[in-house]
Amino acid sequence: MKSICSIEGVEAAGIKEGKFGLGLIRAEGTAAGVFTSNLVRAAPIELMMDRIRSGRLSGVIVNSGCANAHTGRRGLEDAAAMAAIGASALGIDEREVGVASTGVIGRYLDLPLIERQSGIAASSLARSAEAETAVARAIMTTDRVEKHALVRGDGFSIGGICKGSGMIAPNMGTMLAFLYTDAEIEQPLLSAALRLATDRSFNRVVVDGDTSTNDVALLTATGAAGRVDANEFERVLEACCRALAVQIAADGEGATRLVEVTVTGAPEEEDAAAVARTIVGSPLVKTAVYGEDPNWGRVIAAAGRAGVEFDPYAASLTIGEGESAVPLVTNGEIVVDLVRAKAAMAGKRVVFTLDLGAGEGEATAWGCDLTEGYVEINGKYTT
Amino acid sequence: MKSICSIEGVEAAGIKEGKFGLGLIRAEGTAAGVFTSNLVRAAPIELMMDRIRSGRLSGVIVNSGCANAHTGRRGLEDAAAMAAIGASALGIDEREVGVASTGVIGRYLDLPLIERQSGIAASSLARSAEAETAVARAIMTTDRVEKHALVRGDGFSIGGICKGSGMIAPNMGTMLAFLYTDAEIEQPLLSAALRLATDRSFNRVVVDGDTSTNDVALLTATGAAGRVDANEFERVLEACCRALAVQIAADGEGATRLVEVTVTGAPEEEDAAAVARTIVGSPLVKTAVYGEDPNWGRVIAAAGRAGVEFDPYAASLTIGEGESAVPLVTNGEIVVDLVRAKAAMAGKRVVFTLDLGAGEGEATAWGCDLTEGYVEINGKYTT
Repeated sequence: MKSICSIEGVEAAGIKEGKFGLGLIRAEGTAAGVFTSNLVRAAPIELMMDRIRSGRLSGVIVNSGCANAHTGRRGLEDAAAMAAIGASALGIDEREVGVASTGVIGRYLDLPLIERQSGIAASSLARSAEAETAVARAIMTTDRVEKHALVRGDGFSIGGICKGSGMIAPNMGTMLAFLYTDAEIEQPLLSAALRLATDRSFNRVVVDGDTSTNDVALLTATGAAGRVDANEFERVLEACCRALAVQIAADGEGATRLVEVTVTGAPEEEDAAAVARTIVGSPLVKTAVYGEDPNWGRVIAAAGRAGVEFDPYAASLTIGEGESAVPLVTNGEIVVDLVRAKAAMAGKRVVFTLDLGAGEGEATAWGCDLTEGYVEINGKYTT
Repeated sequence: MKSICSIEGVEAAGIKEGKFGLGLIRAEGTAAGVFTSNLVRAAPIELMMDRIRSGRLSGVIVNSGCANAHTGRRGLEDAAAMAAIGASALGIDEREVGVASTGVIGRYLDLPLIERQSGIAASSLARSAEAETAVARAIMTTDRVEKHALVRGDGFSIGGICKGSGMIAPNMGTMLAFLYTDAEIEQPLLSAALRLATDRSFNRVVVDGDTSTNDVALLTATGAAGRVDANEFERVLEACCRALAVQIAADGEGATRLVEVTVTGAPEEEDAAAVARTIVGSPLVKTAVYGEDPNWGRVIAAAGRAGVEFDPYAASLTIGEGESAVPLVTNGEIVVDLVRAKAAMAGKRVVFTLDLGAGEGEATAWGCDLTEGYVEINGKYTT
């Protein structure tokens, strides 16, 4: 097992039929959630923002193929009905069911389909490698691969699954993530840790700059492993979320390469994050990475529009990592060797490091290249 | 004549050799400029932000192929040397020469090339249709067509040329625009009118969300037509800038369709503009337009992340224009007829109108679809 089913007390099941998938997860515990910053919130988001206030979840029902977004009062009723279907399938209180949806906006849920799929899934609910893979697959839309992470701490573990891979932008940068831990941890600490980890992981992934109406990350702590150190928990949760975030970036719609940008020397961490996100989100940087074109001026130009003050002629930029990093600009002076710079773009992962020379703030953001594949996937999504 | 050479006192010339072009314009008068908001400013921008303070220009020299951006002290010296070359070619004071550049960032100007091309161009300086076309062509990079506009007011005219078509984003949304009028108008009024017209035209075009290091619009008033009404001047200038802005959007890199989004019912005009810009800039809206996919949920989702407060269930959205407009959402209720909606996307121009139902503010923004062509053009730009 490589993600959520490694956590004691977590059972899962999933079914995928064409574009339409349904996943079930049963796990009782203290819970926290973070939600999309988009003003237009899907019905399941509205429902969950209210329900999560109890600080408890006993299970989750999630569907792909229809986002149940911009569906008004009927959408809210449908989301509640979906929760009831999940409660019945999982044998739990419907007020403790998490609901999430992903897919086309502006369409109503097909509740008979959800009820049928939920019934099928319930019959295979299990704590196994197959089960966690089935639920990770059930929530996929344009994702090409399932996304799993498992990080072990001192006496506890945190596991998660998530999906990407379009409408991915800085504010709550994932469509759906479900995280589980066996740690016993108080709800306010759980919430704070999830917010911080999200800010440093999902919120630093940009695929296309479009923030979804349905983004949600839910974290449930079953408590089976007993009490843990809060700092250690934060560290492990952040590592788990980062592992998932990187998978979202690498599997961005149409992507052939992961782009990782680390900004150092910023006034504050949030400044570094703003510059790093702007660079990984730049269509011109993304296309250059795709074409293995060492057009580093686009990286500098993107940094310049990030809204952070720095002196361009104090900045240094490299491409590649560690010993094999190729300097492009050193303290504002152009030192690039275009042949070596191009060679540093040949792999599946392209790394830029930009030192702004303006402080101690540091952050990393992840994105992907922009290819014809993105255009193709999104040009005919509903038709 | 269809643009700047229609204005009395304006002569032009241009030469284009492969990627490298050079344009000259001679026109004495009161002048104003607006410049990129990118923190990373090209050398010619730094030079012009200083020189424009005199409020006078007698001519312009502009090159394409090299942006002279992020080139440090040497870049500033090169920009000044380019101004001197222009002054010599045009027979004017070098302190009254406007300088602009567009092309690859992080490369030094080839001054011998600029001197040679300037000499050739100077010999054909003229006030003719051929001359204004030659200079409009000289400043093109990935543009497919030259961009001209001419708008007549009461007793005066305003003409302009400009170029797009990548690194186009909301803040000073054009690489280069050169505007001329025969109106006699005081410098402070000229500056204010240019700022307003730019805000309502170039700054409402989004091709890819990347703000250039080299954006500039320069406006010179020769005064040959005598004094004019300031309000009328503002109106005509805005019309001229809009005509150019729409051409930039329609000729966005790889574009097959112009996208025009009008937002009404916003709290303020700037709110309407923010929502309209976010929609035309959304990669998911752009790809849907390319694929003729009536995935209108993406328009609503983009509106929701624009940072403007409104009630999604009070909003109405249509596609198409006037009598043939197809309602998609009316006061938050889904009313779409997908077949008619798809039909409204068949032309070269796709129009969305979104009424937020939250006030009187109104604005239009322009963009283009996102196609494989954009990826191809930008994947191998420097190599």
